[in-house]
Amino acid sequence: MRDFLPADLRRREYVVRVIKETYERYGFEPLETPAVENIETLLGKYGEEGNQLIFKILKRGEHEKTGEADLALRYDLTVPLARVVAEYGERLPKFFKRYQIQPVWRADRPARGRFREFYQCDVDVVGTRSAVVEAELCAAASDALTALGFRDFTIRLNHRQVLAGVLEAAGVPVDKHADALVALDKMDKIGFAEVLNELSRRGVAHPARTKFMGLFEGMAELEHAAEFVAGDGGLNEVSQTEAYNHAALGRLVEFVGGNEAGARGVDELRRVYEYTHEYGIAGRVRIDPSLARGLSYYTGAILEINVPDLAGSLGGGGRYDNLVGMFSGKDIPACGFSLGLERIIVVMTEREMFPKDLGRAAADVLVTIWNEESVRDSLAFAAELRREAPALRVDVYPEADKLGKQFKYASARGVPYVVVIGDDERARGEVALKDLKTGEQETVARAHAAAILSERLHGNKS
Amino acid sequence: MRDFLPADLRRREYVVRVIKETYERYGFEPLETPAVENIETLLGKYGEEGNQLIFKILKRGEHEKTGEADLALRYDLTVPLARVVAEYGERLPKFFKRYQIQPVWRADRPARGRFREFYQCDVDVVGTRSAVVEAELCAAASDALTALGFRDFTIRLNHRQVLAGVLEAAGVPVDKHADALVALDKMDKIGFAEVLNELSRRGVAHPARTKFMGLFEGMAELEHAAEFVAGDGGLNEVSQTEAYNHAALGRLVEFVGGNEAGARGVDELRRVYEYTHEYGIAGRVRIDPSLARGLSYYTGAILEINVPDLAGSLGGGGRYDNLVGMFSGKDIPACGFSLGLERIIVVMTEREMFPKDLGRAAADVLVTIWNEESVRDSLAFAAELRREAPALRVDVYPEADKLGKQFKYASARGVPYVVVIGDDERARGEVALKDLKTGEQETVARAHAAAILSERLHGNKS
Repeated sequence: MRDFLPADLRRREYVVRVIKETYERYGFEPLETPAVENIETLLGKYGEEGNQLIFKILKRGEHEKTGEADLALRYDLTVPLARVVAEYGERLPKFFKRYQIQPVWRADRPARGRFREFYQCDVDVVGTRSAVVEAELCAAASDALTALGFRDFTIRLNHRQVLAGVLEAAGVPVDKHADALVALDKMDKIGFAEVLNELSRRGVAHPARTKFMGLFEGMAELEHAAEFVAGDGGLNEVSQTEAYNHAALGRLVEFVGGNEAGARGVDELRRVYEYTHEYGIAGRVRIDPSLARGLSYYTGAILEINVPDLAGSLGGGGRYDNLVGMFSGKDIPACGFSLGLERIIVVMTEREMFPKDLGRAAADVLVTIWNEESVRDSLAFAAELRREAPALRVDVYPEADKLGKQFKYASARGVPYVVVIGDDERARGEVALKDLKTGEQETVARAHAAAILSERLHGNKS
Repeated sequence: MRDFLPADLRRREYVVRVIKETYERYGFEPLETPAVENIETLLGKYGEEGNQLIFKILKRGEHEKTGEADLALRYDLTVPLARVVAEYGERLPKFFKRYQIQPVWRADRPARGRFREFYQCDVDVVGTRSAVVEAELCAAASDALTALGFRDFTIRLNHRQVLAGVLEAAGVPVDKHADALVALDKMDKIGFAEVLNELSRRGVAHPARTKFMGLFEGMAELEHAAEFVAGDGGLNEVSQTEAYNHAALGRLVEFVGGNEAGARGVDELRRVYEYTHEYGIAGRVRIDPSLARGLSYYTGAILEINVPDLAGSLGGGGRYDNLVGMFSGKDIPACGFSLGLERIIVVMTEREMFPKDLGRAAADVLVTIWNEESVRDSLAFAAELRREAPALRVDVYPEADKLGKQFKYASARGVPYVVVIGDDERARGEVALKDLKTGEQETVARAHAAAILSERLHGNKS
């Protein structure tokens, strides 16, 4: 777990602010839930591996000695949302559109870029099965990443029912579906040949295994075909992606054939993809039948956003129409997407995507202290500045100290201006204003100092 | 522990934003620490009662069965700050001015206005003994409360060394000082006579007990004297407070007499009080020798902010010059102040101090869906609005549904405008714009809709 010192935190706050503002523009509202949930709320929702990664909190008081745990730390933001929907029911809007940006905790072995406390930025719509939701989620996530400066992300799109249909059409027995998906989920990391081996190890027999993998071989061919046409000068990059996507959807229809759920899945996938055209983001979307996503609660469309220089994803999500029902007993559809704050920050830091001056300075101006006798006057001047120019961040050196030390302190904190009020300046109703970047110093009327500083710093007279 | 639904959360975010902006204007920088600390970091820092209120987290893996805890939930923001200062040492500025607004957890019995998860808004300066810090903290807290609309708060000011000097001068033996302070701390709640009884029960003997309490009787008289002069038409309310404060400081000097630490304490108290004049807040300050504050780690000035209609305080703090040393082994002075977010919200809610329209609406406009065939066109129009007017919050109804239902949904979420694009409007390149407050509907050119909505909502053409 990490401390966030000011410079780190300002970067994090910048990313969170951009994401929040984007979600607000899509009509999402904020929700926060407690860090601690009843342990039964969390257990059994994340699979066996998940159960083991939940931080458990000891019962208090006399029960503490028993070693029993009754509470646990939040593991994700989806299960708490499902609990909230079940708990507040009718008091929530018919379509509950919420975003939630809060930390979650997992007792994972810490590794590079993986922490035991990390933030999730979730956005979900509860209460409708409409594919409009999937499209809005893609558009919102895309807008947020674009606003942060990302230009090269891909939204991968698949569907759980398509996967099920593909597995059935390939002849993989139902009791091997989960195994096959676990193997498929590793395609990015281990490649085609190793996935085939893993399928074999997990007992997915030939010819089902071969037929199943044949689909992905076929997809790779479709991609090469689209590239070939593009290379021939026929298509730009966006059209190339579109050509591939249309071909991929066609191939999926063929593959699932008469499998009803599979065909319905392809239809939904096609609808989401069509909708993304209206937002101008269809060129970012890639139909990817190999996308599996680990979590077991997804029931429909699944999606993931990737950039070339990051092994994992920047975010992911999908439709989970049964999870809320586990709490409320009622069948309430839902679909959501989660952006990974830590990964976004990792990539933005490596690519130097943060605005240049973000949080470099701790304040705009430091009021120095001339001597023990003038402390009160320096405080009065700081108060004047803060009153007259509310946008100025005004620091006061707390002690009467050598002026050089006070300047050095201002420099170290990135403060661009210092004010000195010596006995002469005070007598004349003036202050000395020093620009620490240029080293230039000038004497200005004390009454004008706030306006002058505002203009220098913010280009206006406050 | 509580969920914060959108309307609650917007109120909380408003208060947090005002506090953050105020602290930033004083040159404070943000810090965040993990929710979870090593259990040894927290144990023994909050007294025996505090130890029992710490939420403890089970060791993971095979150790889970032993019932042993190695981590614990953050109990306040001061101890984590002390750990950070010890841990990062030289990498922090010479004077580390940080604010931190994060939740803390206490295994308290929940009661009205008391929660097991609650937010603290802390602001501290580490690295100097200067009384400038106490004055800046008073000014910053005062500015924050004023910006939130508070007009009637009092900053109570006392000093731990003054308390020690008073106790010694009264002849209370050193081993009874802690008992005497516990009794004194209850003055607000149980009154003068009961404090005297409690002193007796706790073994503080006569005449020390009587002499000690005599000071507070004397203070009450000073106050009546100031009121009397004021009532006589001689003083306004601020001057009355000043008259009392000066008299109180004089009385303390007399009372502690030759007690060196006590006399130094009164000097420091006087200096802080004098400094507050430069910020124009001296009229809010009240020298209160009966203020004790529970926490044991305070070493110098202590302060608390109260309003008449709240039994507890809106915030409190003080100087703690030894706490950081418990972690770093080095003697590092520090002083801080904590605003209680929950209590501020309680009072602001009761007094209806929140801005009227805060978060009433979930979006500025809802784009409706005419029929199944026009979904794509509605999405395209929503995308246009968001692109052309980034300040607009645009929601889309996710399903083709009866128009009346879509209007009702918008009303329920407080959305002021809905847009309808029927077949006729679409054919003419227009949209119908309905103001849900007035019920008026007009037809406007689709290309102008973003500008018209921006002007209606924000008074500009975006």
